[in-house]
Amino acid sequence: MDVVKCEIISKTSSDDMDAYVLSESSMFVSPRRFILKTCGTTTPLACLPLLVSFAFQSSGHDAVQDLYYSRKNFKRPELQVSPHRSFKEEAAILDALFSNGRAYCMGSLNRADCWYLYTASLSDGTAAPLALRNDRAKKHMESDQTLEVLMTDLDKDKMAHFFQVNCGSAAEATRRSGIDKLVPGVVIDDYLFEPCGYSMNGVMRSVPGGYMTIHITPEPAFSYVSFETNIPQKSYKDLILRVIKTFGPKQFVVTFFSNSETGTRLGEEDKCQVPLCHNYDVSDVQVCQLPGYDLTYALYNRTPS
Amino acid sequence: MDVVKCEIISKTSSDDMDAYVLSESSMFVSPRRFILKTCGTTTPLACLPLLVSFAFQSSGHDAVQDLYYSRKNFKRPELQVSPHRSFKEEAAILDALFSNGRAYCMGSLNRADCWYLYTASLSDGTAAPLALRNDRAKKHMESDQTLEVLMTDLDKDKMAHFFQVNCGSAAEATRRSGIDKLVPGVVIDDYLFEPCGYSMNGVMRSVPGGYMTIHITPEPAFSYVSFETNIPQKSYKDLILRVIKTFGPKQFVVTFFSNSETGTRLGEEDKCQVPLCHNYDVSDVQVCQLPGYDLTYALYNRTPS
Repeated sequence: MDVVKCEIISKTSSDDMDAYVLSESSMFVSPRRFILKTCGTTTPLACLPLLVSFAFQSSGHDAVQDLYYSRKNFKRPELQVSPHRSFKEEAAILDALFSNGRAYCMGSLNRADCWYLYTASLSDGTAAPLALRNDRAKKHMESDQTLEVLMTDLDKDKMAHFFQVNCGSAAEATRRSGIDKLVPGVVIDDYLFEPCGYSMNGVMRSVPGGYMTIHITPEPAFSYVSFETNIPQKSYKDLILRVIKTFGPKQFVVTFFSNSETGTRLGEEDKCQVPLCHNYDVSDVQVCQLPGYDLTYALYNRTPS
Repeated sequence: MDVVKCEIISKTSSDDMDAYVLSESSMFVSPRRFILKTCGTTTPLACLPLLVSFAFQSSGHDAVQDLYYSRKNFKRPELQVSPHRSFKEEAAILDALFSNGRAYCMGSLNRADCWYLYTASLSDGTAAPLALRNDRAKKHMESDQTLEVLMTDLDKDKMAHFFQVNCGSAAEATRRSGIDKLVPGVVIDDYLFEPCGYSMNGVMRSVPGGYMTIHITPEPAFSYVSFETNIPQKSYKDLILRVIKTFGPKQFVVTFFSNSETGTRLGEEDKCQVPLCHNYDVSDVQVCQLPGYDLTYALYNRTPS
């Protein structure tokens, strides 16, 4: 955490996962997956060499099966620490660590909203002999999907819950905002920052490795909420609608990763379809077939009234 | 053509279209569509203001319905003339001309192959009041699709036909290479350059505005073939396989635009699927929903033997 420039604030666990609330977002550690989600001016890529050596030394692992590094475009990249000032620089750092990585930009390069992804996979290209790749990939193949909803320009009244002057505790903010009703059955570890700001991890004991996580910057000038979960839903449409209703964004980006084993869908019908949300226009819908995973990206803007 | 830095070499016509072979590729002019395809160090964007003023003055048009500017990444961008040294610069020029354009990069930013697209549409965003947009868009809605196959690193024996030392005429090159059998029924206007290089336009009189066009740079050190057509096919798989067999590329990019009126498919089933080609791995498959059109991008590499 020192290397990444954040701190552990709180921890909760299920049988197969430890979920940490950090000073800058969240971390989830399970035997075969490590998720680090940060915000502010952290340096998440800096921990990769150390992390890989820990995983290899202490857990008997000998390869990184899949790596995903993603972020929305920064509003003010000049405030970031190198290599996070440009995606090109970030991709160069990752190219030095992974021989077969791919860098993508989803959405319009010349508009306010786009989303960057760097991914490297054992099942792609020349990282390992083909037989070994297939063997490794199949051995650990299980249903897997991740939904992210990245929201900007949020409803001021809904954001009021995440100021300590309005809510006396994290539990109160969780309840009054309706966050406790988003995904029924999760055990919640929440934190309300001084004077404002909110983070929560939810652990779903009935789903191995199942989590949700929400991070909120409520100040009107640069309000931002991120929602992420891997808890399976038949279709994610209802969950997305609940999330949008809870936070009231003017714009939001949906990203959805799903592997071929998953029985879940982002939208209703084929995998090119994204959910329609009342009062929002959808644009920049892109589907990208990555090794083992399909990725869908969509940008929503509230319809001008 | 002076502004773009190329010349007209030859012309053929159908009832509703003039097709020109240029010193640097091709041009197609019909009442509601203008296609300019160039290569080398031309300046295709430079003609836009002049072209729009011609169209408005002489044909009674009053708006650009859809604009598409696309190209593969350059191998040596430093050899280009500004603004074509970077896609960012090209997009900035287009942003100055169109208020609602979108710039995309399809494929991996950090690999050898990617493909850039800038598009602006009357039916997108704030270019015109909504009622007018819908009216305009619907009035001219007809089935429309365009396939491009951009091939690199081609079979040396197949490229031999496009040297004058081997073929005495364009017609001989067209016949011996098998180009005449790619799309049955087109009227061919072909040209063999001195000492090598080949261009052809094909006009399909039975399909209004129907065309195909092929441009070949056969030198082994930087061989390149582009194939493009808007002639409808139930599925484009067979045509793509014929094209690949005719030219024998090591890598190729397929791009496919289709509007909602089209009854054609790129692959076999849903629109996220691309054709599988024997002896080629497909990667970087992306589908992008643009205003009125779906775009599919796929990169193929010959399987290592």
